[in-house]
Amino acid sequence: MNRAVILARRPQAEVGLDDFRLVSWPLASLADGDVLIRNDYLSLDPYMRRRMVDARSYAEPHPLHAVMCGETVATVVESRNRSWRVGDRVTARSGWQEYEVTNGAGLTRLPDAEIPASAYLGAIGMPGITAWYGLNQICRPRAGQTIAVSAASGAVGSVVGQLAALQGALVIGVAGGPEKCSYVRDELGFGACVDYKQASFKDQLRDAAPRGIDCYFDNVGGFVTDEVMALMNDFGRIAMCGVMASVEGSVAPMANPTLILRYRLSIQGFIISEHREFWAQASKNLRELYKSGHLKYRETVAHGLENAPAAFIGMLKGKNFGKQLVKLS
Amino acid sequence: MNRAVILARRPQAEVGLDDFRLVSWPLASLADGDVLIRNDYLSLDPYMRRRMVDARSYAEPHPLHAVMCGETVATVVESRNRSWRVGDRVTARSGWQEYEVTNGAGLTRLPDAEIPASAYLGAIGMPGITAWYGLNQICRPRAGQTIAVSAASGAVGSVVGQLAALQGALVIGVAGGPEKCSYVRDELGFGACVDYKQASFKDQLRDAAPRGIDCYFDNVGGFVTDEVMALMNDFGRIAMCGVMASVEGSVAPMANPTLILRYRLSIQGFIISEHREFWAQASKNLRELYKSGHLKYRETVAHGLENAPAAFIGMLKGKNFGKQLVKLS
Repeated sequence: MNRAVILARRPQAEVGLDDFRLVSWPLASLADGDVLIRNDYLSLDPYMRRRMVDARSYAEPHPLHAVMCGETVATVVESRNRSWRVGDRVTARSGWQEYEVTNGAGLTRLPDAEIPASAYLGAIGMPGITAWYGLNQICRPRAGQTIAVSAASGAVGSVVGQLAALQGALVIGVAGGPEKCSYVRDELGFGACVDYKQASFKDQLRDAAPRGIDCYFDNVGGFVTDEVMALMNDFGRIAMCGVMASVEGSVAPMANPTLILRYRLSIQGFIISEHREFWAQASKNLRELYKSGHLKYRETVAHGLENAPAAFIGMLKGKNFGKQLVKLS
Repeated sequence: MNRAVILARRPQAEVGLDDFRLVSWPLASLADGDVLIRNDYLSLDPYMRRRMVDARSYAEPHPLHAVMCGETVATVVESRNRSWRVGDRVTARSGWQEYEVTNGAGLTRLPDAEIPASAYLGAIGMPGITAWYGLNQICRPRAGQTIAVSAASGAVGSVVGQLAALQGALVIGVAGGPEKCSYVRDELGFGACVDYKQASFKDQLRDAAPRGIDCYFDNVGGFVTDEVMALMNDFGRIAMCGVMASVEGSVAPMANPTLILRYRLSIQGFIISEHREFWAQASKNLRELYKSGHLKYRETVAHGLENAPAAFIGMLKGKNFGKQLVKLS
């Protein structure tokens, strides 16, 4: 039997457990050329929230009653395909399900067994590559410049800050709560981390950036972004990667867009799937950094497919700490 | 006697006549190397509004009790400087005054007497060069693409649209009132012009852009910009040149910055004085277009220095039609 989570209905405001449904069906037998993979880890990512609704965006709305989309790390458990052998570890675009019969399209062999498999869904995978691209292609901090990163303890933000610090930038993280801030500062080595849940957030941010902010890697939007923008230096660069402050139904406006003119800022929205030409280089760079001890990460792991919807909803509220995964086997 | 308008106090909310003061003093006699210029036309520009207040921006706050800054077209009426002869026509950064004694720094000879002198403050001057730069260096519409321009009948917007149309783009102007819209469509040759004062603005804009909007040259911000952004195509480019919707004290937010991510937009704020390397090329191009009949413009001319403050306040409210000038002699 295979079990899967389907999109049962489109959320109206906040996502609820009833927007998902757990279903099961008998596994099909393999045709010639097929492989059967068992998904070991499922990645939960903010972009999935946007696909749940029916609005024009970089991806089509997720079809109703189809298996929720998503990346997994998987193991080949049966193969009638010469390219794949039982025991091969792969990444797959398998979605929220325990097994999948596939012809092998979309499977990518894990390139380095020394690296924990789950990292290929986080710091070494799509989130890490997102960080790498936005930092190196859009933010481009020079040594001695100051970069701010929101959602700093998250799968993307944590990589942004570590890479920027290695390049000699002063890195200011923004995260929610003292525990996440300590981690960002003390374990990830950011120069500072400011807690956006504190009433003194604005003052603390200003104190953390005595020379202003040259680059901003934005994962959230909303008031955090407003306060960072107010501190930006002339000709500052903003990579807009995520809008967590707006994912749950309401849209957070930008308080003062006149700053874009006054400070001659540039803002660039991007989505990493449109920049595949950088993936190999970024992935190699990230693997090397991990193996040399320069790239740390943290994971929050839910157990069992039936707990994926609750874990996803928790992630949208910032309850995860680092990369949110679901362990499926 | 020289007469001048000084900044008497910083405006609190809307600019008022009392923020200016008309003063006069006897002209100094010329020292060796000096020239006396008589200002013929004074240019009134939105950037002056920003300088009147004390906020961090691309220029220092205007000093209190000093002559209001501004560009003029002037005539040399007395000279003790070998570089300048009586009767020479020049552009100057002379400010809101009738005469100036200067050592010649900042004077630029008008390069082409066939072109009306006042055009060097408008379509051929700083506003025209602003249009040229923002269009060609930031918006970069390709033939067949759609570009929207706000404040379309103004000194900058009118040039943006004419240049873009010559490049084969579909140009949609946004302007206030039927008279300005007719002018933009019928005389300047934009493909369409939409009146932002109409209740049906949003629908009319959408109808004018059946293939979406690829580029946006923004002179206003506020709800006009919000509606244009909602229609932008993926990878659209926005040149932020002006924020007229925010100049009078209050700041207009950007309603939906998540579109920057969803549509992967890039937004660039710029100020033309920082791109002097393009001025000669742009000016030459604009002069050629004017002389070949491809660059039209319109002026609103106030008469007499004493009427400059009221003309400036009117311009901030959009009462001018085309370039706002003050004729001083």
